[in-house]
Amino acid sequence: MNNPQIFDILQQFKQGSLTLTQATEALSVDAVQELGHATVDTERESRTGQPETIFGEGKTDVQIISIVQVLIDNGQTALVTRIDQNKGTALIKSFPGGEWNELGRTFLLSPPPINRQGEIALICAGTSDLYVAEECNSTLRAMGHQATRITDVGVAGLHRLLGRIDEIRQHKVIICIAGMEGALATVLAGLVSVPIIGVPTSVGYGCHMNGLTPLLGMLNSCAPGVVVCNIDNGYGAAIAALRFCNLLPLETT
Amino acid sequence: MNNPQIFDILQQFKQGSLTLTQATEALSVDAVQELGHATVDTERESRTGQPETIFGEGKTDVQIISIVQVLIDNGQTALVTRIDQNKGTALIKSFPGGEWNELGRTFLLSPPPINRQGEIALICAGTSDLYVAEECNSTLRAMGHQATRITDVGVAGLHRLLGRIDEIRQHKVIICIAGMEGALATVLAGLVSVPIIGVPTSVGYGCHMNGLTPLLGMLNSCAPGVVVCNIDNGYGAAIAALRFCNLLPLETT
Amino acid sequence: MNNPQIFDILQQFKQGSLTLTQATEALSVDAVQELGHATVDTERESRTGQPETIFGEGKTDVQIISIVQVLIDNGQTALVTRIDQNKGTALIKSFPGGEWNELGRTFLLSPPPINRQGEIALICAGTSDLYVAEECNSTLRAMGHQATRITDVGVAGLHRLLGRIDEIRQHKVIICIAGMEGALATVLAGLVSVPIIGVPTSVGYGCHMNGLTPLLGMLNSCAPGVVVCNIDNGYGAAIAALRFCNLLPLETT
Amino acid sequence: MNNPQIFDILQQFKQGSLTLTQATEALSVDAVQELGHATVDTERESRTGQPETIFGEGKTDVQIISIVQVLIDNGQTALVTRIDQNKGTALIKSFPGGEWNELGRTFLLSPPPINRQGEIALICAGTSDLYVAEECNSTLRAMGHQATRITDVGVAGLHRLLGRIDEIRQHKVIICIAGMEGALATVLAGLVSVPIIGVPTSVGYGCHMNGLTPLLGMLNSCAPGVVVCNIDNGYGAAIAALRFCNLLPLETT
Amino acid sequence: MNNPQIFDILQQFKQGSLTLTQATEALSVDAVQELGHATVDTERESRTGQPETIFGEGKTDVQIISIVQVLIDNGQTALVTRIDQNKGTALIKSFPGGEWNELGRTFLLSPPPINRQGEIALICAGTSDLYVAEECNSTLRAMGHQATRITDVGVAGLHRLLGRIDEIRQHKVIICIAGMEGALATVLAGLVSVPIIGVPTSVGYGCHMNGLTPLLGMLNSCAPGVVVCNIDNGYGAAIAALRFCNLLPLETT
Amino acid sequence: MNNPQIFDILQQFKQGSLTLTQATEALSVDAVQELGHATVDTERESRTGQPETIFGEGKTDVQIISIVQVLIDNGQTALVTRIDQNKGTALIKSFPGGEWNELGRTFLLSPPPINRQGEIALICAGTSDLYVAEECNSTLRAMGHQATRITDVGVAGLHRLLGRIDEIRQHKVIICIAGMEGALATVLAGLVSVPIIGVPTSVGYGCHMNGLTPLLGMLNSCAPGVVVCNIDNGYGAAIAALRFCNLLPLETT
Amino acid sequence: MNNPQIFDILQQFKQGSLTLTQATEALSVDAVQELGHATVDTERESRTGQPETIFGEGKTDVQIISIVQVLIDNGQTALVTRIDQNKGTALIKSFPGGEWNELGRTFLLSPPPINRQGEIALICAGTSDLYVAEECNSTLRAMGHQATRITDVGVAGLHRLLGRIDEIRQHKVIICIAGMEGALATVLAGLVSVPIIGVPTSVGYGCHMNGLTPLLGMLNSCAPGVVVCNIDNGYGAAIAALRFCNLLPLETT
Amino acid sequence: MNNPQIFDILQQFKQGSLTLTQATEALSVDAVQELGHATVDTERESRTGQPETIFGEGKTDVQIISIVQVLIDNGQTALVTRIDQNKGTALIKSFPGGEWNELGRTFLLSPPPINRQGEIALICAGTSDLYVAEECNSTLRAMGHQATRITDVGVAGLHRLLGRIDEIRQHKVIICIAGMEGALATVLAGLVSVPIIGVPTSVGYGCHMNGLTPLLGMLNSCAPGVVVCNIDNGYGAAIAALRFCNLLPLETT
Repeated sequence: MNNPQIFDILQQFKQGSLTLTQATEALSVDAVQELGHATVDTERESRTGQPETIFGEGKTDVQIISIVQVLIDNGQTALVTRIDQNKGTALIKSFPGGEWNELGRTFLLSPPPINRQGEIALICAGTSDLYVAEECNSTLRAMGHQATRITDVGVAGLHRLLGRIDEIRQHKVIICIAGMEGALATVLAGLVSVPIIGVPTSVGYGCHMNGLTPLLGMLNSCAPGVVVCNIDNGYGAAIAALRFCNLLPLETT
Repeated sequence: MNNPQIFDILQQFKQGSLTLTQATEALSVDAVQELGHATVDTERESRTGQPETIFGEGKTDVQIISIVQVLIDNGQTALVTRIDQNKGTALIKSFPGGEWNELGRTFLLSPPPINRQGEIALICAGTSDLYVAEECNSTLRAMGHQATRITDVGVAGLHRLLGRIDEIRQHKVIICIAGMEGALATVLAGLVSVPIIGVPTSVGYGCHMNGLTPLLGMLNSCAPGVVVCNIDNGYGAAIAALRFCNLLPLETT
Repeated sequence: MNNPQIFDILQQFKQGSLTLTQATEALSVDAVQELGHATVDTERESRTGQPETIFGEGKTDVQIISIVQVLIDNGQTALVTRIDQNKGTALIKSFPGGEWNELGRTFLLSPPPINRQGEIALICAGTSDLYVAEECNSTLRAMGHQATRITDVGVAGLHRLLGRIDEIRQHKVIICIAGMEGALATVLAGLVSVPIIGVPTSVGYGCHMNGLTPLLGMLNSCAPGVVVCNIDNGYGAAIAALRFCNLLPLETT
Repeated sequence: MNNPQIFDILQQFKQGSLTLTQATEALSVDAVQELGHATVDTERESRTGQPETIFGEGKTDVQIISIVQVLIDNGQTALVTRIDQNKGTALIKSFPGGEWNELGRTFLLSPPPINRQGEIALICAGTSDLYVAEECNSTLRAMGHQATRITDVGVAGLHRLLGRIDEIRQHKVIICIAGMEGALATVLAGLVSVPIIGVPTSVGYGCHMNGLTPLLGMLNSCAPGVVVCNIDNGYGAAIAALRFCNLLPLETT
Repeated sequence: MNNPQIFDILQQFKQGSLTLTQATEALSVDAVQELGHATVDTERESRTGQPETIFGEGKTDVQIISIVQVLIDNGQTALVTRIDQNKGTALIKSFPGGEWNELGRTFLLSPPPINRQGEIALICAGTSDLYVAEECNSTLRAMGHQATRITDVGVAGLHRLLGRIDEIRQHKVIICIAGMEGALATVLAGLVSVPIIGVPTSVGYGCHMNGLTPLLGMLNSCAPGVVVCNIDNGYGAAIAALRFCNLLPLETT
Repeated sequence: MNNPQIFDILQQFKQGSLTLTQATEALSVDAVQELGHATVDTERESRTGQPETIFGEGKTDVQIISIVQVLIDNGQTALVTRIDQNKGTALIKSFPGGEWNELGRTFLLSPPPINRQGEIALICAGTSDLYVAEECNSTLRAMGHQATRITDVGVAGLHRLLGRIDEIRQHKVIICIAGMEGALATVLAGLVSVPIIGVPTSVGYGCHMNGLTPLLGMLNSCAPGVVVCNIDNGYGAAIAALRFCNLLPLETT
Repeated sequence: MNNPQIFDILQQFKQGSLTLTQATEALSVDAVQELGHATVDTERESRTGQPETIFGEGKTDVQIISIVQVLIDNGQTALVTRIDQNKGTALIKSFPGGEWNELGRTFLLSPPPINRQGEIALICAGTSDLYVAEECNSTLRAMGHQATRITDVGVAGLHRLLGRIDEIRQHKVIICIAGMEGALATVLAGLVSVPIIGVPTSVGYGCHMNGLTPLLGMLNSCAPGVVVCNIDNGYGAAIAALRFCNLLPLETT
Repeated sequence: MNNPQIFDILQQFKQGSLTLTQATEALSVDAVQELGHATVDTERESRTGQPETIFGEGKTDVQIISIVQVLIDNGQTALVTRIDQNKGTALIKSFPGGEWNELGRTFLLSPPPINRQGEIALICAGTSDLYVAEECNSTLRAMGHQATRITDVGVAGLHRLLGRIDEIRQHKVIICIAGMEGALATVLAGLVSVPIIGVPTSVGYGCHMNGLTPLLGMLNSCAPGVVVCNIDNGYGAAIAALRFCNLLPLETT
């Protein structure tokens, strides 16, 4: 609650349209709905620009479904991430109108219409990294964005990337998804001037250490201005991209 | 070199204004100046939006000074980072018109005029983290930006942060600089909707492990959309912020 | 055995009520019961204030059941932790009067009556962290304590926490359970003056490293006086809280 | 600010003793004093029970001295930690009435009178760990507590510890400071029933890894209920002990 | 594309055998075939000396089979690595003429005739390391090489190695595959003068950390000139050996 | 082969009882038997005092059985370690006279008669650590030793250990097996003067990191002279104990 | 104190030669001398076979000198380890009869006469590892042992080691000191049957990580029965060797 | 010593030109020269193709100088690596004819004439990595090779690298030296078919962890066949390159 809101409540109180108890209560915080196991933040969208997303890992089917129901009942989009085969099946059964993305491990219900496209490029080093791109894409879609996807342009075959660099340059934000050593982020950051959000993936083996190698690689990129999300965090990269894109003026074509 | 440029060279060659040898040469890459020890990238600014910056660590005074000279000779801004007391003294002696920031370990010569301000907020958890904010600020200044600085608002005393949250919300990008456990990034990301770039610092001790703790903390933030730079990397955070801000329309006040 | 006890045995010996052999034996240590595979410490409760608890991992059903039997036979409460589905089933079959907490992976038999409540608050960042809260709660219950549970108040939505802070402040000890980056512990420690015991959880992924991130975060908290238990160690946090609470005078309401 | 305070301001406003502007301002947060480089939290003591302490590392002499001055001017105790030889000398010169503890790297000015003693035992495994005990002791002293110090009772010579165990048992909280493998915390926790706060130290070499070994050892103690602070964090252990002791009734001897 | 190629296209353009559009297109990069999920690099063989290999992990059966088909359709050898039982079965069903190596987890179709043998020695410390040797061998076979395999000559029984050292010395490149502490690489490197490529394996337990121990051991070898691949990376070692061997003159016996 | 052996061969050669070819061959190394997949070291017993042991992990049933057969055919004891349920079943089927220890994951065939007992004490901190003690015991048994086993004497209940310390002191070598923080090794080493071999176990969770915590703890023990084996390495500890005990004179009772 | 001692005190008490107070006191533990900063364990030698050694790091000159004085006053040998140039100078000034080993960083005063030699071999991989051998040797000397030293026999030049293997085999215990990858321990353990104590050193660079590489290497040795001490811990290796050797019968030559 | 040598000695012995003692001695190993502190391997050159190099760290001036003298006396080249300012000064004073490379920390005396050039390319990502290139170059020079050096072609400015790729392709072996994230190795390996030896450098900061980041990056390169040396190990990379080049036929220009 910010000062204008405090100001407003105080004036209503002085004018008598709010009692002392009402004013006290209004000045305390109340934007949550209690489910016992969860406190659903039904005002997050208005506060931070994104609706609350449900992290599916460690929650039971029943818990997830009840939270989805609260969001839908409040007229919001429901996005669930990190759901396995069983949870996906349970969700699609409860909400047949939803979209379950098996590779991306997401479930999406009541997304808004697409109102922005061509702003965000999802660039993927290899076919094995696609599961992260899918999570990212579902999240963007849940917020009304349609991203461009460019796959299998890893730097071991540099011409694959260079052949599409002009297309890439037409976007406002680039999400670069790469496993192994993650060098794609560095090469991209040297070729374009727009924001680059690196998402290291757990694709690799041995001393790759489940993604620590490309995470460290991207954080130490010799090309400046690469920012990085957690390993396999397609969801977080999407939200970061949206934090930026939502500040851009809507282009009218 | 992109297709329009190739196209252009080809046409000049067909029309005879370029010979075969000239065209071949023009189609090869030539935007560098060789110093023996260094290959100065004098076209990086036009290509990526930022001039080349000199990483001072591991370079001798003489090497740094010669690179600065090339950049100045090419009409560019010169920014040197990570310089110790000795290198700072040598640089200010060679280029008395420059600004040496001792705390931030930077040297800045011929910055452009300030053409953007109030877009970027530098938020610092504690006084001990200021050296990173200084590096960040010098870099922004080298690109014509004037950032707002807000210091010592760590979440151990939450009211300090809440007391300035409205001011913070008026910016387009937030750079959050914090050591210890780095929780400031999470709390900020839950309170504002604009991009948050986290910069963990090496301020701490024991199992802080020179900044790995806040780095991991920011990467695993429960507030979505936090993106992260390397430990103490004020320079990289500045460049990332600029990659964002340069896409925003200039506000005319 | 402390000096008053030695003194006492010596006097009995001098007075002849103990023979030389009896006195020697009495002065040696004998508060254990041998099961072959285990040496059950049947005097731990009187010595340290807590009965011995059975760590279920790596023990067979038969071993666990035989230790439970010894404790029950000695009139003690039996608490088993870290038991999977199979062990839980076996225990409930052998001791139908017990309580098996599947989420918390605990089994509890013959707990004492509740003699203290409202002293300990179990505060949980998210729904996914509940399994640790359950283990913690079962342990407290095994010692006669009834804790207050407050769930899903993670700092990404700060108002959820602030909305309940007055309630939290009425407790004597706070156990803060959080995964991801664990920032909840820091924010709480800045808002209350009572002891805060942090329990990092393994909820997270990527560079979370199964809980190392919130563990390090809590250990490096910028809010002073946070003490920390091992990852997912709800049991240890409960015992630590009891070590504190048992020194407090019983409030008579 | 809690509800009673909001309630109070609202009533003053309704009664006219506060104008609208004054009430709005009063309802915003103002318990800080701005120094430019630092935002001194002059209400922390009333809020969390401890005055703000100055972490000396990474701050200049001038910064530290100005913060000390603000605290003193507000009638508070000033405690500075982690100060090297140079800062200690500068502080003692500016504030000749202060106590500079060279081994503990602390500076203490205007401590309150001792109002509690014999509640906290500082138990130190070896002579090399004393620097941490000193920091801990200075912090306790800054809050009016006088701790009992027991040194060089490491478990390699178990009789040294057993010989003093009765004395140890007479305290309410035990702070156990140990380097090497930190086994002292486990042995103590098996012998006493009061709270044990473990402080691993960086005393050791090789794969000790500057204290990670005893840190991990204490966190994985087979004796339940050990809680742990960061490596070398005597200050944090003291604050944790105070969070507890301040809840205990004052004993009148 | 190198200068002679640019030169050639330019001349064709000037002479009119290429139009402006054709020349522009020819000067852009086009050596890939798009499959949607993958961009198959059908010119890698001519560019780097090895055909593209399919990393089977994280790809579906259908994706792998479609890429194999593209390679076969382009007249290339198809090698798939890191395939489990299910993928192996699916591949052998689709391409009955292929060779599925279950231990080495590889699938090989249409290898070239053997044109080089006796150049590369695959030396394996123990029977448990054979799965890496198999992957390595399949890769060499896919490139027309026949390696010599020497197994179970770990240095715990030094005479086993010394008994075969003359045979080993007759090769041009040695690939040394070892788990545990990986000391075989050091001992070999002290006994022969040809290139030694070390491949640490994940064979071991405890603080072996899945191969980090022999990886670090080989990288720190006291015998100079050992070069190292990732843990279990038999494929990479084979390619590295081929990069060497393909420069050697073909011996005509 | 040592000098006396060389001397002997040379004399036979000079006297004509060995031809030049025979002498050359005899001077080369030949104490192995080739199985294709394995080079069985049939002389290890005479060379190092212990027969070759088969590490079962990563070997197939068929490979293990064939190596066992070679050892038996050469009149040696066969010991297989790290075998799972399936391999154990296969071995007991092939060699019904063998002993399969399911908890210890070992298989033992044709052990020698017991010729030494009461020299080695196997001391185990908790019931959960017994699997390591079993592996250790099987190995000792394979070499003709009978160890004393003392279980569940962890230092959280110090009296359990002290109650048996006199019994422990009667042994020549102590193998101390402990998980969690492994403090038992330190306490033991302060109480006895004979060799202490520490075996950290993987019993624990969270930041225990599968045994790294007690491994580091034992390596950094404040009680001097503790030597350490790999995590869970009961086999290695047994061999180390044997290396020592075999030097002791046989006691004749 | 063991049962015979308890028995003895009890009888004296019954017979009146000890009063009740005296007996109580005698049954409590008193083998220490308090220095304020240190509790000197003057009975450790009789209890564990080795006199207390002073770990010099983190202690002041004055503290070290006072402990040395107590030991000397009690007729014991004084050994100080890990002393730098300054402490060495201070010690030699206070105790001119002592031996200060600058490379080994030890100080030795009043060692016993040599009563055992030729039992322990100190084998050092390279000249750079000698500082650890010196610490080890001083410790052995402080206990009356004379070790054999064999230097620079690292396995990169295997013949250097093999050339001295017969000499090595004549010892009862081998201490193997090696940095880099530490492979010497494995090769030695395959060639001799006596106990091998590995001491990894911090000699190396890069991913050697100050000795972690040879530490891990030795712990994972493929040659069984290698036991390991902490990095650079020549002192601990010596004590471990003595724990062994002191059980061996004295050889009379 | 190999079979032909054994054969030869045996024949001389049979023919009487060697006595029994002489033959025994000849069959034992003798290619070392003892200095007390060091065992100089004067036959390493003939055995492995490279003379012994002196690792200067941890050796005193006197030790280094005496080893250099032995090598020179045996007609060999002397190369010392890792020498600081003081040792460099001492060496140049003792051997004024030597070359001391201050940046590369090497000292070289009596190198052979250059007999190979243009075979090895030293490619360096940035000016800050030059110290490693210098060590590498000195080592190559000590073996008679003249490498081509190409500096400051890091992939942040891809055109710098592409502009020199034809020149690079003319070499037989490429040594790629890079800090930060080390992506240069991957990009190079995708562009050339010859061997690539990666040398990660410690140039970087924060989570670079002194070179672990590029080390891991190169080991996990998505471009196959990159082999890797230890961090900053220019010496090892040179030896590896020589192991290969020495097998190539000498080109006669």
